[in-house]
Amino acid sequence: MTHKKSVFKRIRGAIQNHDAGALAGIFDECPSADMADVIEHLEPGERVFMFTAFTVEQAGEVLAEIESPVQKHILAGLDNQLLSNILQQLPSDDAVDILGNLSEERTEDILEMIGRNVSRELENLLKYGKETAGGIMDLEFVAVSEDKTVGDVVTIIREKKKVKNLYHVWVLNHQDKLCGVLSLKDLLVESPDRRIRDIMNPEVIFVHAQKDQEEVAGLFKKHDLVNMPVVDDSGQLLGRITHDDIIDVIEKELDEDLSLMTGVMGQPIAEESTLKISRARLPWLITGVMGGIVAAVVINQFETTLEKILALSFFFPVIMGMGGNTGTQAATIVVRGMATGDISLINIKKRLWLEMRVAFVNGIVCGLFLGLIVGFWFSDYALGGIVALAGALVILNSGVTGSAVPFVLRKCNIDPALATGPFITTLNDILGLLIYLGLLTLFLGEAV
Amino acid sequence: MTHKKSVFKRIRGAIQNHDAGALAGIFDECPSADMADVIEHLEPGERVFMFTAFTVEQAGEVLAEIESPVQKHILAGLDNQLLSNILQQLPSDDAVDILGNLSEERTEDILEMIGRNVSRELENLLKYGKETAGGIMDLEFVAVSEDKTVGDVVTIIREKKKVKNLYHVWVLNHQDKLCGVLSLKDLLVESPDRRIRDIMNPEVIFVHAQKDQEEVAGLFKKHDLVNMPVVDDSGQLLGRITHDDIIDVIEKELDEDLSLMTGVMGQPIAEESTLKISRARLPWLITGVMGGIVAAVVINQFETTLEKILALSFFFPVIMGMGGNTGTQAATIVVRGMATGDISLINIKKRLWLEMRVAFVNGIVCGLFLGLIVGFWFSDYALGGIVALAGALVILNSGVTGSAVPFVLRKCNIDPALATGPFITTLNDILGLLIYLGLLTLFLGEAV
Repeated sequence: MTHKKSVFKRIRGAIQNHDAGALAGIFDECPSADMADVIEHLEPGERVFMFTAFTVEQAGEVLAEIESPVQKHILAGLDNQLLSNILQQLPSDDAVDILGNLSEERTEDILEMIGRNVSRELENLLKYGKETAGGIMDLEFVAVSEDKTVGDVVTIIREKKKVKNLYHVWVLNHQDKLCGVLSLKDLLVESPDRRIRDIMNPEVIFVHAQKDQEEVAGLFKKHDLVNMPVVDDSGQLLGRITHDDIIDVIEKELDEDLSLMTGVMGQPIAEESTLKISRARLPWLITGVMGGIVAAVVINQFETTLEKILALSFFFPVIMGMGGNTGTQAATIVVRGMATGDISLINIKKRLWLEMRVAFVNGIVCGLFLGLIVGFWFSDYALGGIVALAGALVILNSGVTGSAVPFVLRKCNIDPALATGPFITTLNDILGLLIYLGLLTLFLGEAV
Repeated sequence: MTHKKSVFKRIRGAIQNHDAGALAGIFDECPSADMADVIEHLEPGERVFMFTAFTVEQAGEVLAEIESPVQKHILAGLDNQLLSNILQQLPSDDAVDILGNLSEERTEDILEMIGRNVSRELENLLKYGKETAGGIMDLEFVAVSEDKTVGDVVTIIREKKKVKNLYHVWVLNHQDKLCGVLSLKDLLVESPDRRIRDIMNPEVIFVHAQKDQEEVAGLFKKHDLVNMPVVDDSGQLLGRITHDDIIDVIEKELDEDLSLMTGVMGQPIAEESTLKISRARLPWLITGVMGGIVAAVVINQFETTLEKILALSFFFPVIMGMGGNTGTQAATIVVRGMATGDISLINIKKRLWLEMRVAFVNGIVCGLFLGLIVGFWFSDYALGGIVALAGALVILNSGVTGSAVPFVLRKCNIDPALATGPFITTLNDILGLLIYLGLLTLFLGEAV
């Protein structure tokens, strides 16, 4: 952290002095991912100046690491010629991600400026959805025919200098379809004249280009892969997904879940526009307000009770807090468990029964605690007892709702992450107040 | 999902018929990670039966994938001889993780049963903290002297058949200290008589064994690594961390953050004991109840106002919901941004100013919405106007609190994830009610 802060100050200084040499020096010491973080914190004008000071290679590396909303601003400040030079240096998947942030017209103009071969590759990649295997794959891989020998393959690898991070070679059969895999270790330890067909592992794990990236990440985790071939419907090899793409996918999917859980829709962390952020958050806030209005209507039904004992309203926050917290705790565990595979639809009853027992214990503890305070405060332990019972029931209800709703959503093919946060909290607010006011009205002998 | 469900049913059937052959057949088709998930859903007795049906290799692979709380139950049901056989088959990091779940006495007994060399290795690994580089490293790596030739190294690799997932070879200098790295691709393309010293990359990225695993994960992400050497204070090579360990670290750290955010402390998802789960969740629930009591005391101060207009209490849920949701949204983005590096301490003012603008816009929209409903409901648009103003201020306050508190916690070296969820919600409940009731009392001309 302190490191980045000092880099930030030095960059600011160099920009203010228009000292491109100093900037290049800082770049040499600082990994491009750190550089990208620092640039995200600069003012828009300063950012564009940085990119004119970089070499084409440096600019590409850093640009690929910058978050989408900031990247868009920078792209708007760079001219097409410079941008096309930058893109030609980048691995194909990074280049395509950047093109995806440009208008269609500008993408076409830039593809025309880029050399024929590269631009055809990029056009092919642009066809795939951003969150599919095709959308995250790159084209830097080595594939060889099963008829080749180990010696042939070594020669091929020697020629393909551009392919970085090469750990496996994929094998194609006579129809040019993927039929096996060889690790570089296999190639190293086998003698040069052996046929690939005889030493390859035919059980190659691959995905189709249309596969959702979350499922791809699941395969990587299950089989501890470093890379994976991507094929089309006919089994033709299209590209390669590498482990670092998968870490990005895992973090993105988790952020998406977290956004849903906390009531933010599709807002990138680095977004800088006030109105875009507002728009991402308002739907849930408005939904929350409407839920609150429903709660107000519920309370209104118990006006007579409240008029007699105004103090009952003092405890709305406690009741709502207990319900909200219990529901969120249960829902979060279930939602995360589903995502990691530790909780599945296999044994819903067992989980619900466990959550019910937990809510029962916690309900008794918290209910008693609250009841004692209320009893002491108003010197009325009968009231305290009723409040204790109400509190326990509210927690029991919330624990069950919180753990059951994610399963229901999943069955309906809705993202269960939606269940935590605002949704479950609002639902439990309303149910909790109903239980609390209903029970008190009943015991205090008040007709509604 | 459906796949796992059918595997689950078949396993249940085979166990009920005591058909070990059928179990072996299912194992052959099913990746060990899936198998582990399924076993987590079996009854305790069924689980132990599964492990007696497995071969030692199968048992090890599956056991390593099972979550800690369930693993402990299974370990209790296996005898020491079987367990020591299983552990000898496993990569050292997995074996040590399992030993970490046993009592010290039992660990000693088992280490005695395991062959001398392996048990000394495991004892060395047991020294390191579970969440450090030393705690997640394994001992399966290849290190060679810088004096060797490419041909020598190939011979060494050929002998080290046990090392799986080998992508790099580390180079040691004359003092046996780490001084470089070579990819297998380098070894493949260079001629056999070249000296390692002349072709190695001296800029090898490594970590010290005491380094926290989260920082290690950061290095992996920054440099897109597949593995990384671990050294002791004197620069001696100790072990290797691989990319799949890092994916586990990333997911675990995220789950930890998420637990803090939702008020669950250190509860593994697969935990099955009601009391352990209760104990993990109760601290926050009780804290929430105490926060609610404070809110009750605040409301009590405005008793006179409430007695005059009871309907004001109807809107406690709306006010609390608006504050809670806004605070959680802002805090979540800041906390996640800090974790991913997109938001840092570099530019706190910029972020706070952005969040304030967002809260201002959302406050006006939600405040107006609420004010109109209240005005319409009670045919009192003056009241509606005051409620609208209160709502807007509550959202503004919560947005600022939600985004500022994580920075404050970070400055105090407290995990900022603590800021979201119960903590920020309770704080905003209290502040929100103060603003709402205070403003209404002021405008309606009521002395407290």
